[in-house]
Amino acid sequence: MKTPIKTKEDFSELIKVITSECQYKAPLAFGIARVDLGQLNPEKSLQATYPVVNWSENFGSAAVFISALQDQGIEIDFSKNEVVYDINLDFIEYCLNAFNPFLDEATGSAHKNIQVISAIKEQMLTGFVEQGEFKVCFIFEDAPLESVEATYLKLYAISLAKVGLRKINLNGAFGALPNVAWSEGIPIELEYLRENEIMLKVMDEYPHIDFVDKFPRFLQHIIPADNTRILDTSKVRFGAQLAAGTTVMPGASYINFNAGTLGTVMVEGRISSSAIVGANSDVGGGASILGVLSGTDGNPISIGENCLLGANSVCGIPLGNGCIIDAGLAILEGTKIIITEKELDKIHEVNLDWIPVDQLLNDDEELEQIDSENIFYIFKGSELQGLNGLHFRQNSTDGEIICKRSTKEVKLNEELHQ
Amino acid sequence: MKTPIKTKEDFSELIKVITSECQYKAPLAFGIARVDLGQLNPEKSLQATYPVVNWSENFGSAAVFISALQDQGIEIDFSKNEVVYDINLDFIEYCLNAFNPFLDEATGSAHKNIQVISAIKEQMLTGFVEQGEFKVCFIFEDAPLESVEATYLKLYAISLAKVGLRKINLNGAFGALPNVAWSEGIPIELEYLRENEIMLKVMDEYPHIDFVDKFPRFLQHIIPADNTRILDTSKVRFGAQLAAGTTVMPGASYINFNAGTLGTVMVEGRISSSAIVGANSDVGGGASILGVLSGTDGNPISIGENCLLGANSVCGIPLGNGCIIDAGLAILEGTKIIITEKELDKIHEVNLDWIPVDQLLNDDEELEQIDSENIFYIFKGSELQGLNGLHFRQNSTDGEIICKRSTKEVKLNEELHQ
Amino acid sequence: MKTPIKTKEDFSELIKVITSECQYKAPLAFGIARVDLGQLNPEKSLQATYPVVNWSENFGSAAVFISALQDQGIEIDFSKNEVVYDINLDFIEYCLNAFNPFLDEATGSAHKNIQVISAIKEQMLTGFVEQGEFKVCFIFEDAPLESVEATYLKLYAISLAKVGLRKINLNGAFGALPNVAWSEGIPIELEYLRENEIMLKVMDEYPHIDFVDKFPRFLQHIIPADNTRILDTSKVRFGAQLAAGTTVMPGASYINFNAGTLGTVMVEGRISSSAIVGANSDVGGGASILGVLSGTDGNPISIGENCLLGANSVCGIPLGNGCIIDAGLAILEGTKIIITEKELDKIHEVNLDWIPVDQLLNDDEELEQIDSENIFYIFKGSELQGLNGLHFRQNSTDGEIICKRSTKEVKLNEELHQ
Repeated sequence: MKTPIKTKEDFSELIKVITSECQYKAPLAFGIARVDLGQLNPEKSLQATYPVVNWSENFGSAAVFISALQDQGIEIDFSKNEVVYDINLDFIEYCLNAFNPFLDEATGSAHKNIQVISAIKEQMLTGFVEQGEFKVCFIFEDAPLESVEATYLKLYAISLAKVGLRKINLNGAFGALPNVAWSEGIPIELEYLRENEIMLKVMDEYPHIDFVDKFPRFLQHIIPADNTRILDTSKVRFGAQLAAGTTVMPGASYINFNAGTLGTVMVEGRISSSAIVGANSDVGGGASILGVLSGTDGNPISIGENCLLGANSVCGIPLGNGCIIDAGLAILEGTKIIITEKELDKIHEVNLDWIPVDQLLNDDEELEQIDSENIFYIFKGSELQGLNGLHFRQNSTDGEIICKRSTKEVKLNEELHQ
Repeated sequence: MKTPIKTKEDFSELIKVITSECQYKAPLAFGIARVDLGQLNPEKSLQATYPVVNWSENFGSAAVFISALQDQGIEIDFSKNEVVYDINLDFIEYCLNAFNPFLDEATGSAHKNIQVISAIKEQMLTGFVEQGEFKVCFIFEDAPLESVEATYLKLYAISLAKVGLRKINLNGAFGALPNVAWSEGIPIELEYLRENEIMLKVMDEYPHIDFVDKFPRFLQHIIPADNTRILDTSKVRFGAQLAAGTTVMPGASYINFNAGTLGTVMVEGRISSSAIVGANSDVGGGASILGVLSGTDGNPISIGENCLLGANSVCGIPLGNGCIIDAGLAILEGTKIIITEKELDKIHEVNLDWIPVDQLLNDDEELEQIDSENIFYIFKGSELQGLNGLHFRQNSTDGEIICKRSTKEVKLNEELHQ
Repeated sequence: MKTPIKTKEDFSELIKVITSECQYKAPLAFGIARVDLGQLNPEKSLQATYPVVNWSENFGSAAVFISALQDQGIEIDFSKNEVVYDINLDFIEYCLNAFNPFLDEATGSAHKNIQVISAIKEQMLTGFVEQGEFKVCFIFEDAPLESVEATYLKLYAISLAKVGLRKINLNGAFGALPNVAWSEGIPIELEYLRENEIMLKVMDEYPHIDFVDKFPRFLQHIIPADNTRILDTSKVRFGAQLAAGTTVMPGASYINFNAGTLGTVMVEGRISSSAIVGANSDVGGGASILGVLSGTDGNPISIGENCLLGANSVCGIPLGNGCIIDAGLAILEGTKIIITEKELDKIHEVNLDWIPVDQLLNDDEELEQIDSENIFYIFKGSELQGLNGLHFRQNSTDGEIICKRSTKEVKLNEELHQ
């Protein structure tokens, strides 16, 4: 135990000492997690629950945690991308001594890391705590993931909107996370079920399994905003990001990890991994936004604001603001889309920077002319990506997929997002 | 306490006295609810569970409940649209005295309101009852909703089929109901989770959240008919109405509140708010019936009997009986649909009252003639709404959306609805 | 009780004696189940949970079980298709005596039937066991189903891949299984809920209902392979078969009983009853494979290997290997599909046995020729069923549904199926 920390000046001095050590490195992210350990392999982490997540912040607390580990003789390798350590009562006492000047202030939204330390102390003294149940995790570099704890820390950061979607490295997540059976939020090793199947079934104690996956669900870890609605917990994977006011209906919807919304959005369709939907847009019932994991060729899709993806439509290209894809229509990168010269002019008005060079200058063959008033062009879906004010339709009298300047203003029903 | 009620004549006399008071007004609906109160705000109702719902019925019980309140000095304002009062043991004892002549008969399906009173007495005497946990609610006018209790009472009335779909005023429901986290049917304030997140997570007591919404689910409150199947509770919102024999599959289906079925229906798609589906119809996998909350321009959609909405079809117009929309097809109000003269004649045979005046007399431009045997007309989807025997198809050799007289008889697999 | 069995030779001798009785018949399938009995009708089975299922195997154990029943005076009618009997401690003791030489070896994956017997003995001696809670079921003939126990036994056999999909007789399953409310895996009679609704609701003990159906869910009974993922338990019905590595997403997917996958498959759509999907295929978001219960005319659909059903596509015909249906496209038995002569030649190269006789020789009217280089044929969907290497597309400039030789190789993202 170091010298008692009595004042905030003492604390500042302590932090200065800790962080001035030559190999010291401030972490990109850190937090203390309660970890669910394997039933058969208690040294294996199955899930990490963080009461508080720190992302490029609270460097003082990070320094205290690092110092508390070093005080127990643990040598921290700051050259690693991520490290995870068990914590014990000595760690907790070291931290409480360091945080001493702030203990009284640590309530509500103030000093949450200190609140975590206090809560763990109480749990260690009054409850049952398994060996290795509480761990501290530091991420020093935004590199491919190796541990369950670091993977959860990054997924938390995304779901808590501490980092933007598609902004951090999630490679390795599938490898780091074990595939487990989930029962009421508790992960269970599949092998444990196999080994105990006969006894559990005979004793009527076979657990009720909600799902089997590597990832938990968003609502197991995240408290949504007051006006956010998720009508079925299975519909949002942990690692998704939902802006306040987003409503996720239970029909055919799904929001994968590293995907989500930037504002009030009605979600009745699929927002695949890496897809982002802008404010006031409506992903209609069964609509599908293709993702990078399976679907597009690695080109992540952003949908702008005030867009409408009609029921059962499929969107395989990025869209700007104010776009509409009609119900049942699939607009993919290779879809050929007809635009009349008149509509092209209108589309230009809201996309001044857009110069469809190849199209207008080179692809003469694609230019067709029916009569003097009816000049039109054929574009590929990928050539229209990211433009504003597009309305994709299929002409039901000849099957042509056409694109016009959108005239309808997309508006969400405000009552549904209060 | 009033004078003892010993005979059924005494009871009749009591009711006469109560209801003859000048301001007395018989309620449109009433019931006694067990109410889930806020964890942080115990004066706030989060959910109201009614063991019995009365809709334009059981006026004697209503009179007793009102009199029991007045007996405690509560002045009931009959000019209000809805009122809600806490009930206590005195209220219960007053009612039991009044119901005395019927107590012995109150079992099974007889005198259910009395059974509720008796059960609450037992619970108050032997269990733990929170202040305000039991409340009585009266609705005097079918007006916009104000309280959680009245909102639940109306949603119960719809889900119990005591009133028809789209028949009562549900305005204000979204404003009346708080958005909460639901755990095993128990509503939890989101702010409670936020305030206690650290402790709950550290102690491994963070609740398992099934969903976050203002509305509960149908199966939390309603017992379906013996031949009704709901394969996933998330798929039917409270306030939906399901006729006996309806099957709701877990794929892409959803039935919103104030929507549902009028007979045996196979539901594998979305029945949006305000949409109604007739007996023996089949809403195919992923099919979407647009609703008034988002989708149509406020024109609620009814689907007739023996209709088939093919897999992934979209229906944006009302349909009569015996209609088919082919798989993958979207029929919206503005969709242009081609009907040959020959098929038009056949459609007329099953829609004798239908005179497509505008179409036949005025829209000459829409009339096209290829040769003497191939006259056809172009209709908008909205012009065909509500007609019987339509079969919508897309001609896959030219992309035309056409409509013919339906020849297939839609039949459900009886085994699936036993 | 028969004579003590001390050696494996004694056991062999016992089996010889039992099985040589003239009416003795080895069962096709058998197992001992823990049965959930009706709350109101305890003589009624609601669910049968088998710790171990025997399908054309372990005939020695079967003989012991049959002999144990006969020892209690039960006369087994071997001419029946299926029989079910309660078992009691005498039955257990008889079996343990017979299995005596194997008791020490009965751990892990060895002698699982003996492990079941031992576990039941322990449960009978130390826990609470209801009358009729443990039953033994024998199926002698693959005939229409009559009992809950036999139905579960067959569904187990399919879900455990002890028999192939579509290989056994499941007729009668809907009639045999009662429709019940399921709460955390426990079946509850709907009538029980009705009779006790008032008390349960007043006491705040109304059960949380997950779903109402005749069938349970796959994950209530089956432990999937380590690399299989089912992201929502509601999405796979008991009686489905999932090959290792299959991933079932939560959006619009569903796998019905007697349907499933033969290898690593990404499932984001519906695999209806009787439909089978081959290895390395991708059922895209909201894609629908029609089933025999409602949809096709009884022609069960198999999808080959390395196929891709695009998002929101509909597949109504069997497909060979390496086929693609583009997003949003519906290919049904009656869909007319255009193939140019050039593409037809390429398709022939990978379908050497295919001779579209009727088409090429007789249907001259269907043969159209635009110019010398552009000969094409029109096929019905059903005429192309089962062929390899087809790519179905809709030409977005004229609405034609065309079929080409597929050029893209369908590959699943390996990370998603580790």
